[in-house]
Amino acid sequence: MTLQLYCFGESGNAYKVALMLALSGADWQPRYVDFFNGEARSAAFLVINPMGEVPVLVDGDRVMTQSGAILLELARRFGRFGGATPQEADEILRWILWDNHKLSGQAGTCRFLLNFLPPEKQPPGVAAFLQARLKAAYTVLNAHLATRDWIVGDGPSIADLSCCGYLYYPEPFGFTRADWPHIDRWLGRIAALPGWKHPYDLMPGSPADRAPK
Amino acid sequence: MTLQLYCFGESGNAYKVALMLALSGADWQPRYVDFFNGEARSAAFLVINPMGEVPVLVDGDRVMTQSGAILLELARRFGRFGGATPQEADEILRWILWDNHKLSGQAGTCRFLLNFLPPEKQPPGVAAFLQARLKAAYTVLNAHLATRDWIVGDGPSIADLSCCGYLYYPEPFGFTRADWPHIDRWLGRIAALPGWKHPYDLMPGSPADRAPK
Repeated sequence: MTLQLYCFGESGNAYKVALMLALSGADWQPRYVDFFNGEARSAAFLVINPMGEVPVLVDGDRVMTQSGAILLELARRFGRFGGATPQEADEILRWILWDNHKLSGQAGTCRFLLNFLPPEKQPPGVAAFLQARLKAAYTVLNAHLATRDWIVGDGPSIADLSCCGYLYYPEPFGFTRADWPHIDRWLGRIAALPGWKHPYDLMPGSPADRAPK
Repeated sequence: MTLQLYCFGESGNAYKVALMLALSGADWQPRYVDFFNGEARSAAFLVINPMGEVPVLVDGDRVMTQSGAILLELARRFGRFGGATPQEADEILRWILWDNHKLSGQAGTCRFLLNFLPPEKQPPGVAAFLQARLKAAYTVLNAHLATRDWIVGDGPSIADLSCCGYLYYPEPFGFTRADWPHIDRWLGRIAALPGWKHPYDLMPGSPADRAPK
């Protein structure tokens, strides 16, 4: 049965799952969620996910949410990107949790504030605060990648797919690849994997669609 | 061998693990990290955890970090609080990720800003922004607990221990139990479990220790 991914192009958290599906050659299709017109908070969507968030992956009767949990489930199911040993699997889980807390968790908010809120609704000081905290996260990741090609083990894993979620987007939110050379090269390695696509090529919806015509 | 938990009383993320150890009757001892004097960013500590965070749980040669990953490992090891079925285990993982992203991830920062930073260092507007986002998280959790005693299944699990991490502290950061009756009663149920202790009774360090004498 074709997997259905509730998503929209601007969501880095949805991108993590879309990328996993693409790299695994899964039978899937995107189902666009009109986030910017409030669909993720609509009564109909809250029945699907009471947390009011994408991604949601639907497999027949089974509804899965939280990008990290979906990535772990898909790695089990496809037997790919889940680590070669139990120790690697533990490390992968650790980095996915770190990503949710420190990297994507804050990058998503920062990106939203700086690019998708009208300037008059921008809460003063918040983006700068998040950027300072994100700098600490980039520092941790960049240092980790200084001596290795992938976050865990000798090959790509869902830890990489999770941590890269917000780092390919063109809209500025304070992350510049050139400032973080080890992250930059690692993003290049991920983008060279067979089947890789940019978020806006993998999921429907992008700022271009919403630009005044 | 006695498990060593690198922690300090004010850390709700460390509390999650301390509480798991206490409720499981584990052989453990706290190892105080002097966070407020920078120990978590010291060269010596970064060798233990390059992410510069507590909790760190040390079991002989094995060093574990990230509260969510440690909770999952301890649930496996002790055969407790990990859910009764694979479906419950999946749900537990989902809530732990949500907690890291939306609840504890933001509550810890908000609590830190409002209680442990001098007012002149307080970034204007950030705490209010985090409080608005936290209100959405409390709403999700309160609604979830309206029809159930525990976050997953029929008994306490590490999903409960994760989500409650910052919710027993007395210092104000915008969370008032009375405003969220289902969360309030659930916190009461957790506190009634045999072996439960308040964070400041389970780990060394509290604001009282640092108050001017």
